[in-house]
Amino acid sequence: MSENQLQGPGAAPASGGGPAIGIDVGGTKIAAGLVGGDGRLLQRAGRRTPRPVSDPASEEMKAEAVEAAVVAVVRELGADAPDAPVGVGAAGWMDRSGREVLFSPHLAWRNEPLQERLEQALGRPVLLTNDADAAAWAEWRFGAAREETHVVCLTLGTGIGGATIVDGRIQRGRFGVAGEFGHQTIVPGGHRCACGNRGCWEQYASGNALGREGRGLVEAASPIAHALRAAVDDDAALVTGALVTQLAAEGDPACRDLIDEMGQWLGLGIANLAAVLDPGVFVIGGGLGSASTALVETAEHSYRRSLSGRGYRPFARVAQAQLGAEAGLIGAADLARRR
Amino acid sequence: MSENQLQGPGAAPASGGGPAIGIDVGGTKIAAGLVGGDGRLLQRAGRRTPRPVSDPASEEMKAEAVEAAVVAVVRELGADAPDAPVGVGAAGWMDRSGREVLFSPHLAWRNEPLQERLEQALGRPVLLTNDADAAAWAEWRFGAAREETHVVCLTLGTGIGGATIVDGRIQRGRFGVAGEFGHQTIVPGGHRCACGNRGCWEQYASGNALGREGRGLVEAASPIAHALRAAVDDDAALVTGALVTQLAAEGDPACRDLIDEMGQWLGLGIANLAAVLDPGVFVIGGGLGSASTALVETAEHSYRRSLSGRGYRPFARVAQAQLGAEAGLIGAADLARRR
Repeated sequence: MSENQLQGPGAAPASGGGPAIGIDVGGTKIAAGLVGGDGRLLQRAGRRTPRPVSDPASEEMKAEAVEAAVVAVVRELGADAPDAPVGVGAAGWMDRSGREVLFSPHLAWRNEPLQERLEQALGRPVLLTNDADAAAWAEWRFGAAREETHVVCLTLGTGIGGATIVDGRIQRGRFGVAGEFGHQTIVPGGHRCACGNRGCWEQYASGNALGREGRGLVEAASPIAHALRAAVDDDAALVTGALVTQLAAEGDPACRDLIDEMGQWLGLGIANLAAVLDPGVFVIGGGLGSASTALVETAEHSYRRSLSGRGYRPFARVAQAQLGAEAGLIGAADLARRR
Repeated sequence: MSENQLQGPGAAPASGGGPAIGIDVGGTKIAAGLVGGDGRLLQRAGRRTPRPVSDPASEEMKAEAVEAAVVAVVRELGADAPDAPVGVGAAGWMDRSGREVLFSPHLAWRNEPLQERLEQALGRPVLLTNDADAAAWAEWRFGAAREETHVVCLTLGTGIGGATIVDGRIQRGRFGVAGEFGHQTIVPGGHRCACGNRGCWEQYASGNALGREGRGLVEAASPIAHALRAAVDDDAALVTGALVTQLAAEGDPACRDLIDEMGQWLGLGIANLAAVLDPGVFVIGGGLGSASTALVETAEHSYRRSLSGRGYRPFARVAQAQLGAEAGLIGAADLARRR
């Protein structure tokens, strides 16, 4: 086994072991918790993520501020658990050894030897992991993908995070950057993505995509979008994916159409992943995936209509994630415990 | 480890063991050989694949005729190697246990307990495998992907066959049908595919796609296609992907443009696979991949321009396959030997 695959205990792991500290460093907040061996949250803590600054000189300050916040939150949680190891999940790419952050788009980390610095500051073992990998691990250990041998998790938030688990091993790829499902080109020449390319899947199926489409309706002063326009007083800049999701859940037809359209794209991309990976289950989590059951249902319908070879092969399950916003920190803690 | 992953000996396997018989059942021919433990072909044999018949009643006869041809070819090769096990690779999906062919589009096999029937007829152990998996295995063991831990192989022929090998294990997926790379939707609403969907990758990057585009040029009586038109005496029906490839290799500008266009699509799809799988090498084989170095070079260029996150992650190698048309039978033999 190569060092870039985290080893799991097999398809049906026993739970147990002492508590561990899990931290999920997001773009807006740092969520942390002391997590028991059975995956239960014993204690919570949190901080706001130090704000992004566009000045390059202050980028370094921001990276240090994020580290300081992580250290503070561990000290808070670890007071009564001096032996608890620490797992840190963050958006971005870790190197194969899990010691360095190669690139974290929102956190101003570039080739940072974060593990070593945190271990020195904390005097505890620290494991770095990708946030989507951590969330997938938690769903496999304690959530919607228990007992499954082949798992694909999608974390729908501002973009699409992804992770694959096969026989209890997170599939990281040769360079540690597998699972970037959101950056598959699905519409050549389509919408520009923050990654620089055009037509990435996450430009069609994510919170950002939903916000963009909602803003488009408001900017066009569409009569079908009266509820959305009223909610933001015709100020398109106030439309977010979360607002569209909320209005759709309340029954607004225009916002339901947007969720439906996104579900079609989501299902198409899921069918593409099934062609490549053939998992037994797709788990849909993240803020948006957890918020909209309608989205997950539409995506499953679209997936089943789009799968190549349907009729000659079984369908994978499409399941909503079960651990909600805590999946990332629970998974990071569990990975740290089991290393 | 689940039973649907064939186990390899690790990242740097020793070669050795007695000879084995490998058979590659294609749509037009059955290629077979006695293969030594070092992957070398010791003896060859072959048959035409019994011809497809559209009458459903005769489909069953065809399946039996293919089996009979496989039995005959094994008897021919096995006369001096009574203990040699047999590996049979075919286009199609095998069930997880490798005992049944679930579906083989060109071979009229549907839920056939082929392994049992062949073992009874031959009195030797028989292993069934997907032809693209077998070819990938051969390239990893003896060809372009030696020493690699994360391998993606593309077999470019009439369509795109695919296989993934991680740490010496073929990744078959939960239901045994992973690696259907050619049926990723890459152009929503695009060309109709034989699988029933629209816009599949193999409709843009395969021998069939090349033939279709060549026929289009001839049908349009395009003045830039004078060499192609002359080669088929203006009869578009005579244009094949192989002809376009040959004229391109001879320097015809119109056919080179078609190869170039296909290389762009090929690279785009490779970048999509890199986003999901992050391998260390892409091996491009199959009849078309082996025939056109220009195609592979263009594909690599396009891949490097399309990869999401380029600049922050290493590029995988893109390598032409080394074992040519024999990869499938060499891989099937080696898999049978190592089971």
